[in-house]
Amino acid sequence: MRYAVLGTGVVGRTIAARLTSLGHEVALGTRTPEATLGRAEPDAYGNPPVAQWLEEHDQVQLLAFAEAAAFGDAVVNTTAGAASLQALEAAGRDNLAGKTLIDIANPLDFSQGMPPSLNPVDTDSLGEQIQRSFPEARVVKTLNTMNARIMVEPSRVAGTHNVFLSGDDGDAKKAVTDLLVSFGWPVHDIIDLGDITTARGTEMLLPIWLRLWGTLGHADFNFHIQGARATS
Amino acid sequence: MRYAVLGTGVVGRTIAARLTSLGHEVALGTRTPEATLGRAEPDAYGNPPVAQWLEEHDQVQLLAFAEAAAFGDAVVNTTAGAASLQALEAAGRDNLAGKTLIDIANPLDFSQGMPPSLNPVDTDSLGEQIQRSFPEARVVKTLNTMNARIMVEPSRVAGTHNVFLSGDDGDAKKAVTDLLVSFGWPVHDIIDLGDITTARGTEMLLPIWLRLWGTLGHADFNFHIQGARATS
Repeated sequence: MRYAVLGTGVVGRTIAARLTSLGHEVALGTRTPEATLGRAEPDAYGNPPVAQWLEEHDQVQLLAFAEAAAFGDAVVNTTAGAASLQALEAAGRDNLAGKTLIDIANPLDFSQGMPPSLNPVDTDSLGEQIQRSFPEARVVKTLNTMNARIMVEPSRVAGTHNVFLSGDDGDAKKAVTDLLVSFGWPVHDIIDLGDITTARGTEMLLPIWLRLWGTLGHADFNFHIQGARATS
Repeated sequence: MRYAVLGTGVVGRTIAARLTSLGHEVALGTRTPEATLGRAEPDAYGNPPVAQWLEEHDQVQLLAFAEAAAFGDAVVNTTAGAASLQALEAAGRDNLAGKTLIDIANPLDFSQGMPPSLNPVDTDSLGEQIQRSFPEARVVKTLNTMNARIMVEPSRVAGTHNVFLSGDDGDAKKAVTDLLVSFGWPVHDIIDLGDITTARGTEMLLPIWLRLWGTLGHADFNFHIQGARATS
């Protein structure tokens, strides 16, 4: 299958690499490929320049948002939450219509300093904003509650832990479930919370996730709902 | 030890009964004991009237908020979040000064219908509001992320799961840790998140908790941070 992965940060690269390893064709989407390729320095998080990453992952092509979205049978949003609606606008609603749109972004707001706050929060969510803005896309919020490496390799964390799904389209959630299983998620550890409004709950896990990251000193942890299954 | 448990709902009753069973002296605090005792009908959640519950738990005395708080060496807030600051004001700042104040309340706002929203949220929390309003109390936010029965009997949920602590006073958190251990919590399953601002993170677990309650159809589940310990 063909995937468009919008966003060239660590989440986008991790998802793109995993999709490629599973035999999918992947276009990585960015605002202006020339500008992205022109960056010679590591990004703010110390990740190597995209150009270097692309040399090491030569099956992945870098395209502008609209070209990438047109290429993909499904689209994955890994852009920064504050920029997601703009990025999807650039991707083009016609290029999203009818497609599964996997939203991994979190609406972190760093404008007031650290720790970041959320915007929107509580009575709305980024997942809902995206679904409202692109009603013909089939938005599924998932994977936004953990470190990128765990998303594509859940066995990094020993023991049972969970990934959540939120979305209005049952077929799209089924397709995303199959994708998660191909990533290594046991199907009974995938919890379908319900419609896209349940994305509020998963996005609001970010504050405790960030505190736990600080307290534990590492990111190799994940949420596990103990008691969700009869056996653990 | 003497405990004041403010609030006569299911959380207050459950905590009060457990404290009594552990040999503590307990005063249950309410706004107007006469009015509380005068209620003859079950409450909105189907719980029996307080008068009936007190007959079955005759070691617990019902007192006005201020008398209860004066009685307690430590105070437990189980009032509805929207009423907590008022209840603590009625309890009296002199009666709270220097004492450990265990805050189990969540700032659920039902004014916009279901599901409830949170107020405050994101950049503030009820735990912080209480600490700011009563600076001489030693506020520890804990137990607010699970059903009342699990709070006092963690083995109801099979397998490892966690309870969180947030607070600025290390001695108070140590005292609450000891109390949680006496409730049955393994000490290594108690996660100290840090200062009282981390209460934002635990209060913001409520939206996903409420969705999981609906999805799972029962409340005998709890959050487990998989990867928080080397072994699970």
